[in-house]
Amino acid sequence: MIQSVEIICIGKELLIGKTLNTNAQWLAKRVTSLGLDVHRITNVSDDIDEISRALQEANQRNPLFIITTGGLGPTFDDKTLEGIAKALECKLEINNEALKMIEEKYHEYAEEGRMEKVELTPPRVKMARLPQGAKPLFNPVGTAPGVIMKRKGATIVALPGVPSEMKAIFEESVLPLLRQAAGDVTFFETSMEATGVMESVVAPLIDEVMHDNPYVYVKSHPKGSERVPRIEFHLSTTAKDSGVARNRVSKALVQLSELIERKGGKVKPAKTKK
Amino acid sequence: MIQSVEIICIGKELLIGKTLNTNAQWLAKRVTSLGLDVHRITNVSDDIDEISRALQEANQRNPLFIITTGGLGPTFDDKTLEGIAKALECKLEINNEALKMIEEKYHEYAEEGRMEKVELTPPRVKMARLPQGAKPLFNPVGTAPGVIMKRKGATIVALPGVPSEMKAIFEESVLPLLRQAAGDVTFFETSMEATGVMESVVAPLIDEVMHDNPYVYVKSHPKGSERVPRIEFHLSTTAKDSGVARNRVSKALVQLSELIERKGGKVKPAKTKK
Repeated sequence: MIQSVEIICIGKELLIGKTLNTNAQWLAKRVTSLGLDVHRITNVSDDIDEISRALQEANQRNPLFIITTGGLGPTFDDKTLEGIAKALECKLEINNEALKMIEEKYHEYAEEGRMEKVELTPPRVKMARLPQGAKPLFNPVGTAPGVIMKRKGATIVALPGVPSEMKAIFEESVLPLLRQAAGDVTFFETSMEATGVMESVVAPLIDEVMHDNPYVYVKSHPKGSERVPRIEFHLSTTAKDSGVARNRVSKALVQLSELIERKGGKVKPAKTKK
Repeated sequence: MIQSVEIICIGKELLIGKTLNTNAQWLAKRVTSLGLDVHRITNVSDDIDEISRALQEANQRNPLFIITTGGLGPTFDDKTLEGIAKALECKLEINNEALKMIEEKYHEYAEEGRMEKVELTPPRVKMARLPQGAKPLFNPVGTAPGVIMKRKGATIVALPGVPSEMKAIFEESVLPLLRQAAGDVTFFETSMEATGVMESVVAPLIDEVMHDNPYVYVKSHPKGSERVPRIEFHLSTTAKDSGVARNRVSKALVQLSELIERKGGKVKPAKTKK
């Protein structure tokens, strides 16, 4: 059984369209490549109740992990940890390990001459106030540590919203956990492009290929229009063995190509991504 | 009271990270600019139950509109209308107006010599099978019409996933409805950038500005790192009068700039977006 993951992105900047959510795409791709299934991606505002509700709702869908992005910094609207604490019905408390990580960062900045003296002001201490029982995840790039906690249900991982920090903590501390959870499963995907056939013409061909290849997921993405049709096909599968996964996808790809050519379409060689 | 809107983006390509969700950002920006509030953005897979659940959950949060993207095309995995019908507990039925729109599109394609003869095959008719009581929205760019329906609660608008089609239907058919719902409200936003101060230093300054300017929302976005700090500030408000909105934001901007400069930061002139 493929284990599922939910992603919750926190920040008003996403809801007013100021920021394009590249974090969600990056995480979704990374998690999928490990053989896990991203079940849902939710974007909510920097609001304790909203964050808490989104977490509780996600937890009810029984994912193995819930990964949040954003809202871990020092400002008033960094409310992710408060939201998580509310969802888990626990308190925030200063975590000494987190405080030490933060203090060491500011000492580094001071040594580099960026600060005169290191003061642990309330906004800085705020980043070390974690939900009870949570652990900090070292941030190799920025100041605010990531946070991991397991209570009832899913393991919750909170990552910063700054992409470089989010990616660094993910690769260093979250990836090994997800890989272990996924087991020996691999995800394999490939794409091909067809021109000269309409999407409405290929629709029944995809049905046929998916029927004959039950473990392969085929999805068409119209890139031109019905008027000047150009369709990208994305074929993917998840399997215990990477050779099996690759063979399954290749077989489906060959069948789909032949069917499309029979309808007068032209197929461009697949560009293998992974 | 500011009316709220929810966006639901449908498509496995978003959950495997194949596609960056530019549709959500475009819609969020457009809806916000009209003075409406995007409350939540949800990404779910091409699964009838998932689509139905996401819609019902959104509806319970009482938005004025729910806008979906994706899943209106002719292929087997275009399941948005089935999901909506399930959520609203109604049946799908062929809508004659939609069927006529689709038929006319294929006649155009035939006239352009792209097809030999127009056949309304099952995948083509599928695009005209709408939930009972729904109305099609003309697609000026592609084939599948958008769909609008009002039952209990929110007005549901379903738009295609292809960005050019989504945008065209939105501008032509959805914008006027949203503008009417928003009334005389306008959204005003501006940004400025500060260097030479850490986010942990500006955190209490933002608190002060937000306290003195209760209708202005100030958000800091760290762009560099605490090590080499560069912070973008985004100030926004929604008001009945655009002059009032502009004045409110300007006043907060001046105060924030002065406070940052007093802490040794440098402020770059705001780049006004709208």
